[in-house]
Amino acid sequence: MSVNNYDIIIIGSGPSGYNAAVRASQIGAKVALIEKSLVGGVCLNHGCIPTKFLWTVLKRKIEIKKAYEYALNVNISPINFKNIVKIKNKNIDNIRKGMIKVILSYNIDLIYATASLINKNTIMIVENDKRLTYELHAEKIIIATGTQPKPLTDLLIYDGSKIINSNDILNIDELPNNMLIIGGGPIGIEMATIFSGFGCNVTLLEYENYLLSKEDIEISESIKKNLMRQGVTVINNCYNKIDQEVSKKKYDKILVTVGRQPNNNLKLENIGIKINKLGFIEVDEFCQTNIKNIYAVGDITGKHLLAYTAQNDGIIAAINAVTGNCVTIDNSIIPLVVFSMPQSASVKISGFSQYKDVSLGKFPFTASVRAILDSERIGFVKCAVDKFSKKPLAFWIFGEHADEIINVASQILKSGIKHIQRETIFHPSLSETLLNAYEDAFSKCTELTKKINKIEVQQ
Amino acid sequence: MSVNNYDIIIIGSGPSGYNAAVRASQIGAKVALIEKSLVGGVCLNHGCIPTKFLWTVLKRKIEIKKAYEYALNVNISPINFKNIVKIKNKNIDNIRKGMIKVILSYNIDLIYATASLINKNTIMIVENDKRLTYELHAEKIIIATGTQPKPLTDLLIYDGSKIINSNDILNIDELPNNMLIIGGGPIGIEMATIFSGFGCNVTLLEYENYLLSKEDIEISESIKKNLMRQGVTVINNCYNKIDQEVSKKKYDKILVTVGRQPNNNLKLENIGIKINKLGFIEVDEFCQTNIKNIYAVGDITGKHLLAYTAQNDGIIAAINAVTGNCVTIDNSIIPLVVFSMPQSASVKISGFSQYKDVSLGKFPFTASVRAILDSERIGFVKCAVDKFSKKPLAFWIFGEHADEIINVASQILKSGIKHIQRETIFHPSLSETLLNAYEDAFSKCTELTKKINKIEVQQ
Repeated sequence: MSVNNYDIIIIGSGPSGYNAAVRASQIGAKVALIEKSLVGGVCLNHGCIPTKFLWTVLKRKIEIKKAYEYALNVNISPINFKNIVKIKNKNIDNIRKGMIKVILSYNIDLIYATASLINKNTIMIVENDKRLTYELHAEKIIIATGTQPKPLTDLLIYDGSKIINSNDILNIDELPNNMLIIGGGPIGIEMATIFSGFGCNVTLLEYENYLLSKEDIEISESIKKNLMRQGVTVINNCYNKIDQEVSKKKYDKILVTVGRQPNNNLKLENIGIKINKLGFIEVDEFCQTNIKNIYAVGDITGKHLLAYTAQNDGIIAAINAVTGNCVTIDNSIIPLVVFSMPQSASVKISGFSQYKDVSLGKFPFTASVRAILDSERIGFVKCAVDKFSKKPLAFWIFGEHADEIINVASQILKSGIKHIQRETIFHPSLSETLLNAYEDAFSKCTELTKKINKIEVQQ
Repeated sequence: MSVNNYDIIIIGSGPSGYNAAVRASQIGAKVALIEKSLVGGVCLNHGCIPTKFLWTVLKRKIEIKKAYEYALNVNISPINFKNIVKIKNKNIDNIRKGMIKVILSYNIDLIYATASLINKNTIMIVENDKRLTYELHAEKIIIATGTQPKPLTDLLIYDGSKIINSNDILNIDELPNNMLIIGGGPIGIEMATIFSGFGCNVTLLEYENYLLSKEDIEISESIKKNLMRQGVTVINNCYNKIDQEVSKKKYDKILVTVGRQPNNNLKLENIGIKINKLGFIEVDEFCQTNIKNIYAVGDITGKHLLAYTAQNDGIIAAINAVTGNCVTIDNSIIPLVVFSMPQSASVKISGFSQYKDVSLGKFPFTASVRAILDSERIGFVKCAVDKFSKKPLAFWIFGEHADEIINVASQILKSGIKHIQRETIFHPSLSETLLNAYEDAFSKCTELTKKINKIEVQQ
């Protein structure tokens, strides 16, 4: 049993842990990074990256089928899902290798092991392959253990074969014929989009009246409409219908995407780290837990469950752990993106729902010069502005490249600027649709015909 | 001969004139819009729009040829340029129809005619089709007559057949076998990219040491390298080689793209409107000429020759003409984009070249997760930051979707924000490369391996 001392030990190498480790090392700390499975966490291995890769393949397939719109004469063979999955896995492996290369370049000790807390400075390590057990000591600890898929009920247990979760679905290499997806949140929508796009018959069950129940209703309904156009059966208010659907013989796969639960089995109780009633670790604006030398970052804090806020947490916690608490989390403006087809996205100023004096503008992709050139007829942008000051307050996008354009919207809101400066947006770009929707909110869009009635605001 | 009175007469319906007309009408003015050719000006008919359409077709073709990278098995027939041009023209027609619909919805009088100034409130109109001649009167006049391609010398006169300009090249519907392009600015580069991509042998002559001589050298050299990879022969410092190349028999087409000259034949001298030595109309920050009731907007002012600054000019002039001078032009942050393959773009704070204490960061697309998923291996982002405050000062992008991502960069610079807020940029997006390049400028990029030497700044 060896004993090692570090400035900082970080548990978990997903977006938050990885960034915490690299940044802490960049500013001079001696760092150990503990990973019990694969470097990259949910994002790389079971989340953002594989999903976006499969989505991209589907997008290319759709574009190829629409190539005649550009006078391009193309034949495409039926897809080979096994080969697509092989390339996905190769990409993930390459990205992981890149991450490990960065980690090692900073002399971070990368330890493949399961960690648990003995006291506030000591971690018990059980190495994965060698089954070695030893203690590590550190002045500061950063917990970045993330989450895992939540099971639906005790009766519907993941078996990894028929009843599967979002990790499992990304590991299959044979396309199911019929799939039931329970849960119409971002993951359910993305999986329905991808798998139905590849030819699987998908039924999507959602508990609420609307898919993405916290999102703007028009976005939600647009997603639903396009899923249905793609052949997906969407059932809302599914409470009483789950048993009936689950019992149907036709489904090869039943994918449950009803939320995530914290990976908190670190013996947190040994040192009395506060968790909330859902089991997520409580932290303050410095990412600090109630135990002052211990920080928690990313999904384990249960705040946003987003890779980019997790990355941010990691950076902030690293700086605070190394130099003393000096930087705070500011999550006032966070874009949200779902890879429906086309993508959907939104971003709001904090406290938007309390805003009273709001005007709403809307601009359809059919009126966007760039969307016409890109042959993207489906889509719109909405913008909420303060009725009096005309300051932009929120944007919603349903349309191609929403995942990039929403970042323009985020910067506009983050800047607190009073109006959008036209000359800062290139023409012809899709980003211009933000400006057009903004100007429409006070009936000054120059790309839309004059209208009499203003649309009503939805908050 | 009829006589009509307007609040505002606008001459030219390109991006600046169109926007001036619609906005002036939106805020209550009675407007006449004079167009001597096609609504939409250079942008729609001979510039941005047709170029970006052809570029998009090429991009799709390239993506289809790379579809095997997604395990998609595709056959593509040789391109049919005539059919591509047909679709381009149909798109342009549809966009133009849309613009006209907006114009008419605002009860703007759209008059197809040639205009000249009689006095500061009177315009002589010669209608195109009916050959009617009459006078129009207005309290305010906005000149938006734009520019046309400049000829190379008196010896090399456009004949519209072999010696052609950027208008002509967009009207051909047969792909030349061999084309010489004189001028390695944005238009020359875009035409070389498009036509060589479609199979034409292109030779590109540039006067200076570098293509896009005012752009960052690394961007310029990357464009050149990729043009050459595409099969284009690029000849720099071409002063002594033009005659020799022009005389070669092999060229079906000689495209001259050496700049633009003002459409100023409006009898400006009748009322003494000040023009500069190149013939562009001089205006102040209100877009006002030396004749107080006459404004000039867009390319005719010779300032930026960009559609989006022209649109902005139009809006500003309309507001000032209707409500009295109350808004000023602020062109401190303007993104620049060239549709090379991949695209290139840059944006800087004003006065950047005078900045002394600058650090430079760089991030390659090969390290971007999203670029990997998009199978885009070529590209990079560079960021200049203030060495002390770490405030971002400039961005350069060479890579896919630079035309959208640069708008994120513009908003960051426009906001004057001291650092990039990580949580405002969605992961995984290409926009993240801005953040990565920014962090690299002070050796804090968490996606790059540790390095010893910093790269040198280029301004």
